[in-house]
Amino acid sequence: MKSLLIGMAMLVGAGGNLLAQEKDMQIEDLLSKMTVEEKAGQMTQLTLEFVSKGDGYAVASPHELDPEKLHKVLVDYHVGSILNCAGEARTPERWYEMISQMQEYAMQKSRLPIPVLYGIDAVHGVNYTVGATLFPQEVSLAASWNPEIVEKMAAITAYECRASAIPWTFAPDLDLGIDPRWARIWEGFGEDPYLASEMGVAMTKGFEGEDVGDKDRVAACVKHFVGYGAPRSGKDRTPAWIPETMLRELFLPPFQAAIDAGARSIMINSGEVNGVPVHASKWLLTDVLRGEMGFQGVVVTDWYDIWNLVERHHVAADRREAVKMSVLAGIDMSMVPMDLEFTELLIDLIKSGEIPMEHIDAAVRRILIMKKELGLFERPVTNPKDYPLFGSAQHEAVAKEAALESITLLKNEAVLPLKKDQKILVTGPNANTMRPLNGGWSYTWQGHKTDEFAKKHASVLSALRQFAGNKNVKFVPGVSYEMEKTYEYDKRDDFEKAVAAAQDVDVVVLCIGENSYTEKPGDLNNLALSEHQHALAEALLATGKPVVMVLNAGRPRIIQQLEPNTAAIVHTYLPGNHGGEALVDLLYGEANFSGKLPYTYPRDVNDLVPYYHKFSENMAHNDGNEYTDPFFNPQWEFGFGLSYSDFVYSDMQINKSSFEANEVIELSVVVKNASQVDGKEVVQLYSTDVVASITPSVKRLRAFEKVSLKAGESKTVRFRLPMKSLAFIGADHKPTLEPGEFVLQLGDQKESIQLTGVRMTF
Amino acid sequence: MKSLLIGMAMLVGAGGNLLAQEKDMQIEDLLSKMTVEEKAGQMTQLTLEFVSKGDGYAVASPHELDPEKLHKVLVDYHVGSILNCAGEARTPERWYEMISQMQEYAMQKSRLPIPVLYGIDAVHGVNYTVGATLFPQEVSLAASWNPEIVEKMAAITAYECRASAIPWTFAPDLDLGIDPRWARIWEGFGEDPYLASEMGVAMTKGFEGEDVGDKDRVAACVKHFVGYGAPRSGKDRTPAWIPETMLRELFLPPFQAAIDAGARSIMINSGEVNGVPVHASKWLLTDVLRGEMGFQGVVVTDWYDIWNLVERHHVAADRREAVKMSVLAGIDMSMVPMDLEFTELLIDLIKSGEIPMEHIDAAVRRILIMKKELGLFERPVTNPKDYPLFGSAQHEAVAKEAALESITLLKNEAVLPLKKDQKILVTGPNANTMRPLNGGWSYTWQGHKTDEFAKKHASVLSALRQFAGNKNVKFVPGVSYEMEKTYEYDKRDDFEKAVAAAQDVDVVVLCIGENSYTEKPGDLNNLALSEHQHALAEALLATGKPVVMVLNAGRPRIIQQLEPNTAAIVHTYLPGNHGGEALVDLLYGEANFSGKLPYTYPRDVNDLVPYYHKFSENMAHNDGNEYTDPFFNPQWEFGFGLSYSDFVYSDMQINKSSFEANEVIELSVVVKNASQVDGKEVVQLYSTDVVASITPSVKRLRAFEKVSLKAGESKTVRFRLPMKSLAFIGADHKPTLEPGEFVLQLGDQKESIQLTGVRMTF
Repeated sequence: MKSLLIGMAMLVGAGGNLLAQEKDMQIEDLLSKMTVEEKAGQMTQLTLEFVSKGDGYAVASPHELDPEKLHKVLVDYHVGSILNCAGEARTPERWYEMISQMQEYAMQKSRLPIPVLYGIDAVHGVNYTVGATLFPQEVSLAASWNPEIVEKMAAITAYECRASAIPWTFAPDLDLGIDPRWARIWEGFGEDPYLASEMGVAMTKGFEGEDVGDKDRVAACVKHFVGYGAPRSGKDRTPAWIPETMLRELFLPPFQAAIDAGARSIMINSGEVNGVPVHASKWLLTDVLRGEMGFQGVVVTDWYDIWNLVERHHVAADRREAVKMSVLAGIDMSMVPMDLEFTELLIDLIKSGEIPMEHIDAAVRRILIMKKELGLFERPVTNPKDYPLFGSAQHEAVAKEAALESITLLKNEAVLPLKKDQKILVTGPNANTMRPLNGGWSYTWQGHKTDEFAKKHASVLSALRQFAGNKNVKFVPGVSYEMEKTYEYDKRDDFEKAVAAAQDVDVVVLCIGENSYTEKPGDLNNLALSEHQHALAEALLATGKPVVMVLNAGRPRIIQQLEPNTAAIVHTYLPGNHGGEALVDLLYGEANFSGKLPYTYPRDVNDLVPYYHKFSENMAHNDGNEYTDPFFNPQWEFGFGLSYSDFVYSDMQINKSSFEANEVIELSVVVKNASQVDGKEVVQLYSTDVVASITPSVKRLRAFEKVSLKAGESKTVRFRLPMKSLAFIGADHKPTLEPGEFVLQLGDQKESIQLTGVRMTF
Repeated sequence: MKSLLIGMAMLVGAGGNLLAQEKDMQIEDLLSKMTVEEKAGQMTQLTLEFVSKGDGYAVASPHELDPEKLHKVLVDYHVGSILNCAGEARTPERWYEMISQMQEYAMQKSRLPIPVLYGIDAVHGVNYTVGATLFPQEVSLAASWNPEIVEKMAAITAYECRASAIPWTFAPDLDLGIDPRWARIWEGFGEDPYLASEMGVAMTKGFEGEDVGDKDRVAACVKHFVGYGAPRSGKDRTPAWIPETMLRELFLPPFQAAIDAGARSIMINSGEVNGVPVHASKWLLTDVLRGEMGFQGVVVTDWYDIWNLVERHHVAADRREAVKMSVLAGIDMSMVPMDLEFTELLIDLIKSGEIPMEHIDAAVRRILIMKKELGLFERPVTNPKDYPLFGSAQHEAVAKEAALESITLLKNEAVLPLKKDQKILVTGPNANTMRPLNGGWSYTWQGHKTDEFAKKHASVLSALRQFAGNKNVKFVPGVSYEMEKTYEYDKRDDFEKAVAAAQDVDVVVLCIGENSYTEKPGDLNNLALSEHQHALAEALLATGKPVVMVLNAGRPRIIQQLEPNTAAIVHTYLPGNHGGEALVDLLYGEANFSGKLPYTYPRDVNDLVPYYHKFSENMAHNDGNEYTDPFFNPQWEFGFGLSYSDFVYSDMQINKSSFEANEVIELSVVVKNASQVDGKEVVQLYSTDVVASITPSVKRLRAFEKVSLKAGESKTVRFRLPMKSLAFIGADHKPTLEPGEFVLQLGDQKESIQLTGVRMTF
């Protein structure tokens, strides 16, 4: 099977398009007219700075495109794509002007009229456009366990992206959040492959719609293929060790799901997997991605990553070798981003015959098809005036809804909901700033100008004051971030005054977590909460006043020692511009909590294991010896989250007790809201393969549904689960079902079934 | 190549002995007479408790063998091997009595006279024999960088093992210490595969000598094959993810070296690698270990590990399936350890034909050959009276020498050497106890009775008082271990008094680290130094008195915040019974430091990367962006260690600048002791493959030599390095050399060479 696939992949590599649809004659005609230089240009993507006035990354202020540079890049070098923001967010009108100007060079001044493809990191809304609707980040969206809200969010993002004249977003991020240390865990949909797949599909559909060429839709770019989220050291862009079994069991499925949902493009992991930089891995980029997974869209590198084959990875002796290696491995487009050497070297490699023309044509064809599908040939630029709902109240309401559905209640000892007339002290570095609510990729790369760009939105403090009135809300920071430094710096700021102020209030709302960051600047050496924030929390807890701890961070920072004395704990993750308002509605009971953790919240810094750990990670020496402490003992488990309602599960039913491999399991369970408060519950279906030839996980998520239940209401929730969805990847790397017992779990209800027949792979 | 090897391995599995030496007719004759039951018995190993009076693990006190149980086990069930200590250390005479009694049942009361094979964890001396010489643990031995002292240590251990009537030790441990969190990192030779290989060979030779049947020698059992030291979570016996490239690059070489050195037996990793428990991996145990690596000795399980295929790993539905699975995978002997079900199930599986007789014969033959090679048929038991040097001053002197060569000076700001008339305060939980000096596997499994058994030896406190006199040495614990609890508990113990006492002295000697532990009881959730010890250090540093920090721990606990104000830091690792004396000689300048770190000492809890990390782990975003902090920034690097001498490197020479793959590089460097103090320097040769198709490490250790240099003396140190020793494991899993530049480094001297020719694998 595998050798057949590899054989087919090689045919594709050599012959071009065997697996693709019928050839598009317009594209073939265009392709046939293109020179080597024009083809190499299409495969090149440069950063906006490179066509801007200024010196390198130091663009002129105010920002202006440089006509000479535009001419050189788009006309002389035929460059096919430009990306990102040259520093910070711009207005839709400014985007429109700039991209119109680029298209003029690409389509009117060039020999062949090929539109330039503009791409941007619009990861939680069009986060590089001033006034755009900024949603919760992906980790928050995952915590909503609500794919519908994700699809709505992505559709609005697509609309506002086109309102900014941009047709291509580098999202969704489908990196598996298996390591809480990793600086980008918040950019993905949490630790579970099934949850990430469901959310990735919803986001892809929301971006691309039925017709990606629609004026309200954009092309998705799923990233970062593959294994990016699992660096062995926990640090960004460092080596991952992922045995093929685990690669296929955990890391490939979200990408496969998004590909099957039609994702038009894919971005590559900047790191190495098993010693091979993914940008140089023909096995992953061609044999697996195209041959096995059937991906037909555009493969784009991440930033600078062909040069990184020389400078970071040391697998290529020089840039020429790096270009050859990565293009032959399966790269269609290089995010260069800051020179024309890629284009020049690629021309040379084509002319020398080192890269066959068929290979180049296949790559260029994919790029041209994507441009055509996006409608860029007829409509090279969309105009903000056609997008009246940009940043509208209607859009902003969805952002708030997403925040309401994701913010997660982790502990509540009778202090929540707050009462409107209670006196509260608001404190902590996350209370009075929009920056950590949004995280990285907000107006700038590191999100360091969010307070300037998002000033019309409410921080936690503003939202509290708005709701409960200035007279009930006292603010003393206690600790503040050092906003001019990198994210990890904070300092005492009226520390003693904050502690003293606790004496005069009924409740303390302590807002802690992290400042904004992304990528390598977000690396950490210690997952514990910062020293100053820890000290502030300790001092406030020592006052004896009830403390509501509001966590606002990209990662689960360790709070083990603080948790026991804290009255309530709410995790906001990175809830976006409406996070403050949503939090306040939830704290005061104007809305009910329904978010659930999309990852395991660890108890200590060296105790980092996902919920789908193995049985061996949950047991002591089982030999009669003295040591019997529990082993898997996180602060909170994946899928956990409280509500003001009480949900009671009963009467779990399975249509029969014994199944064949091709059958579908029909399950149901009755869920009752046994409280006086309307609420939503995420019904989670887990399975356990009791014995398997690859050690089974303690449990795995197989399905979920978020259901609304009025106070006192009961509903029967039904699932149809193909037996094959319980397969695991075997030692031969194939999906495998082995007969025997499986345990299925819904809430606190468990039932066993038997799989009959013989071992099978498929 | 690989398929050929697999083919051969299958032949061996089926036909028995194609790869082995000519058949031994005595063994073949015996084998031909054996019943199925007798063969199954030979493949069974039980723990001493199982033949002792008492109830299960609760043996009677005083300990006695139970004649009925002995008869059942050795005569009725023909069990071939017994292990370990039933709780705690015994005298040589007691061992002699017990093993003599066993041999009586095995050789006289049984139908066929086959000696029972007694095996024991003699890992740092015969640590289960009262009065034996206890050496530093392996991590300390590795820090000596002196294979000669390791071979001497192992030869003495072999002698004292035979003096205890025991012919088989479960050592050396060749697990790669790649993860500082792991509770058994101290049982191996550190993080580097080359250092571990050299030390493993020395230890194997020391145990087995020229003739393992000599009355002074024992059979080695290298452990734990393979990948045991790299659990993803850092916790003992949890899953490892090791891509095959890394398995072959890092983890197999020490085992291959020990096999080539003649190691008679091998013990299997209790964990899983890439989803497959190694005890169930035919690929690793047969194809790789026997087929590729050529191992012909006995494969023994670790404790309970066939049952763990059911209970811990869930890969076998019941014990019968587990026995079949593991024996067919390649297990010769099961460390059951506490029932006869293995034997019974194995008999049944043989009789049913599910395990072919040829397979069983091959396993039993290997066990019988080992017994014969050990001379057990003629001399079933050795008598302590023939071993006059047991625990002698001569042996103890070697233990002290090993400690002197391994203790490592990490920092010295003009406070060392101490002067004999200085007033010192000794404090900290490691000062007044022998237990942490020895670590686990000392008189008991967890080492919790060491203070009772080793009371004639000097703790750090006793050794200091002995050397400097009671009047100069004041002791206040400050913090003490809670000896009745598991290792991680300590408590304040005259904390304030200790801090106050610092006022009256010239220097504080602060003895901190860890209490003794091993295996799962040694798991940790936070690599930081314990809270109490950290607080004690902080308080003492705040006094302004110079603090000499003595680290005594199995793992590198984090001391980042303490280091800057500490005057001197000495790492003793686990230096054994003479560690206290050796430390004092070194502190007072009676001896000179020459130990070097065998692992990277990390700076923070989530910053755990070995020295042979990749270039990608040592760089920022290389794109003109803002973040430029260094990335690989450990507290101290692998190979680091100070001395009272100053060594200056000069005049590095290489015989030529360009090599073919089959050539040998000849290097030399001049090392001068530019000080007034005699000393020893470890000259370390590192290489860097500048570009390679598997991302190269920043550097790799390729050779080393420890040289003695008198004050003022210079020596030319020479190395002969086959070009092939610079090969890496390629993506096809074969050793590979690619032409291009290599950088070689000796001390601060660096030279480049070129490899000519074409890419080759071998």
